[in-house]
Amino acid sequence: MMTFSSFDDIRVACRDLPAGYQEAARAAATRQATLTKPPGSLGRLEAVAEWLALWQGREMPRLDQVEVIVFAGSHGVTRRGVSAYPAEVTGQMVANFATGGAAINQLARIADARLSVVPLEIDRPTEDFTETEAMSEAAFAAAVSAGFASVHEGADLLCLGEMGIGNTTAAAAIAAGLFGGDAERWTGRGTGVDDAGLKRKIAVIDAGLERHAATLGDPLRLAAALGGRELAAIFGATLAARLRSLPVLLDGFVCTAAAAPLARMQPSGLAHALAAHVSAEAGHRGLLSELGLQPLLDLGMRLGEGSGACLAVNVVRAALECHTRMASFAEAGVSNR
Amino acid sequence: MMTFSSFDDIRVACRDLPAGYQEAARAAATRQATLTKPPGSLGRLEAVAEWLALWQGREMPRLDQVEVIVFAGSHGVTRRGVSAYPAEVTGQMVANFATGGAAINQLARIADARLSVVPLEIDRPTEDFTETEAMSEAAFAAAVSAGFASVHEGADLLCLGEMGIGNTTAAAAIAAGLFGGDAERWTGRGTGVDDAGLKRKIAVIDAGLERHAATLGDPLRLAAALGGRELAAIFGATLAARLRSLPVLLDGFVCTAAAAPLARMQPSGLAHALAAHVSAEAGHRGLLSELGLQPLLDLGMRLGEGSGACLAVNVVRAALECHTRMASFAEAGVSNR
Repeated sequence: MMTFSSFDDIRVACRDLPAGYQEAARAAATRQATLTKPPGSLGRLEAVAEWLALWQGREMPRLDQVEVIVFAGSHGVTRRGVSAYPAEVTGQMVANFATGGAAINQLARIADARLSVVPLEIDRPTEDFTETEAMSEAAFAAAVSAGFASVHEGADLLCLGEMGIGNTTAAAAIAAGLFGGDAERWTGRGTGVDDAGLKRKIAVIDAGLERHAATLGDPLRLAAALGGRELAAIFGATLAARLRSLPVLLDGFVCTAAAAPLARMQPSGLAHALAAHVSAEAGHRGLLSELGLQPLLDLGMRLGEGSGACLAVNVVRAALECHTRMASFAEAGVSNR
Repeated sequence: MMTFSSFDDIRVACRDLPAGYQEAARAAATRQATLTKPPGSLGRLEAVAEWLALWQGREMPRLDQVEVIVFAGSHGVTRRGVSAYPAEVTGQMVANFATGGAAINQLARIADARLSVVPLEIDRPTEDFTETEAMSEAAFAAAVSAGFASVHEGADLLCLGEMGIGNTTAAAAIAAGLFGGDAERWTGRGTGVDDAGLKRKIAVIDAGLERHAATLGDPLRLAAALGGRELAAIFGATLAARLRSLPVLLDGFVCTAAAAPLARMQPSGLAHALAAHVSAEAGHRGLLSELGLQPLLDLGMRLGEGSGACLAVNVVRAALECHTRMASFAEAGVSNR
C-alpha cells in the first residue's frame, strides 16, 4: 500500500510509469485481422480491444471484474453560490447511492460492475479557494492516498466517478490553471445554474486563479489549491491503476480535470485511460481535446457519478466479446479478399 | 398476416400510420422530472426513455424481449466489380451467423437480444440494375412481405440489420434517388474497395440512376429498381413495426437507406425509429441528416449485420433502467432546488 504525505511523495510515484505490454497489443492486432469482418469495420471496437490487450498484457483480455468507484467530497466554495443545489445534497446523494436509488446504481448493475462509494470527509468541506488553498499539502496527499488505496486488486477495468456539489467549479479552475484561458472558457452550468449563477461562478473561478497564480506552474500544488478531495482521490486512483497497468474509463468533466495533472506531469500519463464520453458540461470537449482524448460516447449527459464511464463499459465489453469470440475467416470458411 | 402483391398494396398499408401514445410519453416525462438528478442531466437517455414510452404506450416501458433481425440478399450488380469481397461471401456469412462466429452473434448475446437471420433467395441474385430493374414489382412486394412477416409478436424493441455483398451500392443508389445529388455524394468504400473500385462503383450507380430516372419520383418503384431483397425486407419490417407501434433501432447506411422510402412517403414515417449509430460509410451521415435522425453512437463502425443497432441496445436499456428504477427526490430524501 502506497501512502503519500507530500507533493514530493506523489511526484516520485509518477516518475516511472509502466508503458503497457506491446507484445500483447501486437498479438491482439494480428488476431483482429483474421476475424470474419472487413479490416477496420468494427471501428473503435477494434482499437478498444487492442487497448485492453496493451494494458492487461493479454492477447485475449477479460472483463470478469469491472470496478466503479465514486468519490464524494464537499466544497467550501459552495458558499459563493456556484451551484443550483444546496451543499447538503452531496451527503444525501451518498445515502442515495447506498440504498440503490441513483442513476449510477442502475448503470453499474446493467454493466455487471461492482460499485464502491468512497466519501471523503464530506462533513468537513475544503476551504473556499477564493480565500486560501482548498486543501493543505497534507490534506491533498491524504485524499490522493485514499483514492490510491481504494483501487482493488484483481480488477480488469476501472471506472471512475464523483459526486460533490460545487465540483464543476473546482474542475473548471483546475482546467484553466493547467491549460490556460480565463474562467469563461472552462465554466459551464454544472447541475444547472441560471445566467446570474454562471456569472458568479466565472467570477469565483477567476478570483481563485488570481489568488493562486503562483501555484499554476505545478500541477499538484494547483490541484490542492483549487481542487477538492474527490478530485484528488480520482488522481490517486488513476495513478494506482497506471502503476498496476489497469485500464481506466474516465467519466465527465470533473473526472477528466481530476486526472489531468497526471498528463501534465508525464506526457503519456493517461495512456491507460479512455474518455468514456464527452459531457454536455461546457468545458469538457475542450479539455479532452487538450489531452488528446477522443470520447467513446456523446449523449449529452452531464450527471457525473461515473454514469458516462459506466455506460461505456458495454462498448468495451462489446469490443472484448467480438475480439475473443468471433470466428476467423479460416474457421468459418468465409472467402477473404 | 399482411401480404403485399403490388406497390399499391404497400402504399395502402403506409397510409395511416399510428402516431404513438402521447399520454404515456407525457407521463414518462413527468416521472423523469422527479428522479434524483438535475433535470436533463441524463441527456439523450431521458429522451430515449420517453421515446420508448411513446411507442410502447407505457409510462414504465420494458425491454424483456429485444429482437434482432438480419436480412440477407444477393446482388446482380456485384458482377460490375463494386465490392472488395466475392459475392459468395453473403451465403458464407449466413452460415457464420448460424454457427455463432460473426460479430452480430457476440453483440446480440451481450445485448440479451434474440437474433434471427432471414436469407432472401440468396442463391438467386437480383438483376444488375445497370441493365434492368433489380426486382420486378412482384419480387419487391414478396421481399417486403417477407420482412413484414418476420417481425415477431411480443417484441419490445426491434433491431434491424443486413448482410449482402454489393448492398452499399444499392443503398447509395436509393439514397441518391430519394434525396438527390450524384452518386459521388452517397458512395463510400463499403467493405473496403480501393480507389479504382470506388470509381467503378460511382460509375455503376450513376448508370443505374440514369437508366431508372423515370422511377425516381416514386420511392417504392425506386427501391425495386435499385435496391435489393434484404433492403425491401427491412422496409417491410420497419412498416410492420410501425403498424404495431414497436420501437425500432436502425443500423447503418444500408439499413437507413432501406427504411428511408417510408419517410419519403410519410413525413413522420420513421418517428418510431432511432438511428443507432452513424457508420463510417461515406453516405450515412448525410442520409441521417436528410432524415432528421440523430445517431446514438459514433464509433467508426461500418460492418452492417445490425452490429451498430445491437450495440445501441445497451444505451436504450440504460435509459430504461434509470427511468424505471431510480429513486425520486422525495423517496430518497434529497433536497431539490
